[in-house]
Amino acid sequence: MKFGLFGAATAQRSANPDVDSGAGFKDYIEYVIEAESLGYHSSFIVEHHFTGFGQVSATLNLLTWIGARTTTLRLGTAVIVLPWHDPVLLAEQAATLDLLSGGRLDFGIGKGYRHNEYVGFRIPMEDGQSRFEESIDIMTKAFTSNERWSFEGKHWGYEDIVVEPPTVQRPHPPFWQGAGHPESIRRVAARGHNLLLDQFASMDETLRRFNIYRDAMIANGFGFNPNQVAVARAFYVAKDEADKQAAVDRRIAAQRRLHDISQRPDGNNTASIMAFSDTREASEESALYGNPDEICRKIERLQAAGVEYMLLNGGGTSRENLRRFAKEVMPHFADKAPAKAAAE
Amino acid sequence: MKFGLFGAATAQRSANPDVDSGAGFKDYIEYVIEAESLGYHSSFIVEHHFTGFGQVSATLNLLTWIGARTTTLRLGTAVIVLPWHDPVLLAEQAATLDLLSGGRLDFGIGKGYRHNEYVGFRIPMEDGQSRFEESIDIMTKAFTSNERWSFEGKHWGYEDIVVEPPTVQRPHPPFWQGAGHPESIRRVAARGHNLLLDQFASMDETLRRFNIYRDAMIANGFGFNPNQVAVARAFYVAKDEADKQAAVDRRIAAQRRLHDISQRPDGNNTASIMAFSDTREASEESALYGNPDEICRKIERLQAAGVEYMLLNGGGTSRENLRRFAKEVMPHFADKAPAKAAAE
Repeated sequence: MKFGLFGAATAQRSANPDVDSGAGFKDYIEYVIEAESLGYHSSFIVEHHFTGFGQVSATLNLLTWIGARTTTLRLGTAVIVLPWHDPVLLAEQAATLDLLSGGRLDFGIGKGYRHNEYVGFRIPMEDGQSRFEESIDIMTKAFTSNERWSFEGKHWGYEDIVVEPPTVQRPHPPFWQGAGHPESIRRVAARGHNLLLDQFASMDETLRRFNIYRDAMIANGFGFNPNQVAVARAFYVAKDEADKQAAVDRRIAAQRRLHDISQRPDGNNTASIMAFSDTREASEESALYGNPDEICRKIERLQAAGVEYMLLNGGGTSRENLRRFAKEVMPHFADKAPAKAAAE
Repeated sequence: MKFGLFGAATAQRSANPDVDSGAGFKDYIEYVIEAESLGYHSSFIVEHHFTGFGQVSATLNLLTWIGARTTTLRLGTAVIVLPWHDPVLLAEQAATLDLLSGGRLDFGIGKGYRHNEYVGFRIPMEDGQSRFEESIDIMTKAFTSNERWSFEGKHWGYEDIVVEPPTVQRPHPPFWQGAGHPESIRRVAARGHNLLLDQFASMDETLRRFNIYRDAMIANGFGFNPNQVAVARAFYVAKDEADKQAAVDRRIAAQRRLHDISQRPDGNNTASIMAFSDTREASEESALYGNPDEICRKIERLQAAGVEYMLLNGGGTSRENLRRFAKEVMPHFADKAPAKAAAE
């Protein structure tokens, strides 16, 4: 079983010149550097724009900095929202990071779900899917072609180009996609991409999705490698029951805030990543919250069903939580399944 | 007198999996890390696309990696070509680097001059100037506004956005522009931007341009700070006359290659950066090639005219050249003008 991290640093605007706006980024960087030394496998970072509370916007740049400060940690995006980016410029940026880091990029991609981001960039939300698909086609061509090529799409076009630098991972860094609906999962498997399963779905639902992906990958002739699915979970190694319940409270409040940010004006937000139940029981069931023993039982259930890679979100950068999980939970899974590179 | 570097790493595509395509980038990174330790002030890096010989395309990503490996080196772009980039995404990337590096970004920008890049991105060359100007307006707004704003331009539009993260340098990282024609220099001074003077113009011509900028900055009420002008020069500390002449030969060949890459199909390339004379005498006159004494005499001439900041291009990554200049030329100028931050 491999354990990575996913999360979001923040760097808030302030009119006060005495405030160190970079403190949140620097804290997150030191957090993942320590994580690497504790045996964590990867760090996946979000991309968001225009939030007003400083979520990471230039994800590949932050990951590049982290790449230069680490040696084995895999550098993941969760996820780069393709409709905002010129696919060729994005492929160049991703390839540069992959090259400099010796092939450590895990290229998580998505079509975006936040109404205010679509409005901000003035991109019609109904174009999201076709921009997403076209961008994947262009980037794949950019990564893999050593000869000059041209492209005439609905959203982008290029003439007589060859895209550099080359990636280290061949044919290209693995694409990862988040998906929840069965048909979305099957679309991911149709491309043979890796799958990110969200932190909010129940254990049962997560395993159903895991199985849909496994069956579809096999049916599509890609075969199934459990390193190609990462199950996200919130994690908190609690000191006692009161400490655990306080953490559940914090998580529910954070979920509500995320829900509000993502809302469309008509209240009709259908993105699967938001399809969590906000009951206290559901929140507690899906999360790895509790003492080491409680947490191990939950992970064992996933492991028994074939899960071999988890991405943990601590809702912040608590070093104590990071260390306790590494020391009191990870060893329990160290011998059962030797770690493999996610890119395999 | 301050001495920085400008140059271009390469990472070539190869169908051979045994070739380390990243070797050129890694070599350049180690080169500038040593440069920092030798007292060099900055490293300015180009941006180019579709060359087929691996010039840096994702310049801010390479600089981000360098930023994480250095502590005082200023991180310059020479130059980011604005017409290719979404101005808000670019401002986010630049701000992230500025934030992570503690305010070390020198943001060199240009409108591009290579016909094949305009064709590749399918952007009409006649839109270059207006895209360039509009992008500066948008990025300046993105860097400086703590409140939400909207923008309706000829090329880009945004709705109700606030751009994060904030920069460390306020109001924003200094903009640098390359210019050669008097009217172009006056346009740079009209915005109060910093000026990059190219490595090909003669000493006389360079000083004329320096003076045009100084006079215009003063006339525009910005005042004049010599740290706002960087004079680029090729440099090579030669062992003897034959070694020097061989270096001149290499330089002329490199100039011809650059000239050919930049050519328009009609042969009518008017970009000022290409307006060099390719006679041997001119090439030798403009370059800092020779023994330490010859080189010092040339720098003294620039210094006497008010130049206090030079960007050196070694046409490669010769450590010996880098070290000899640092040890045999730099000390001669160490006491005459104390170094100041380029951002001042």
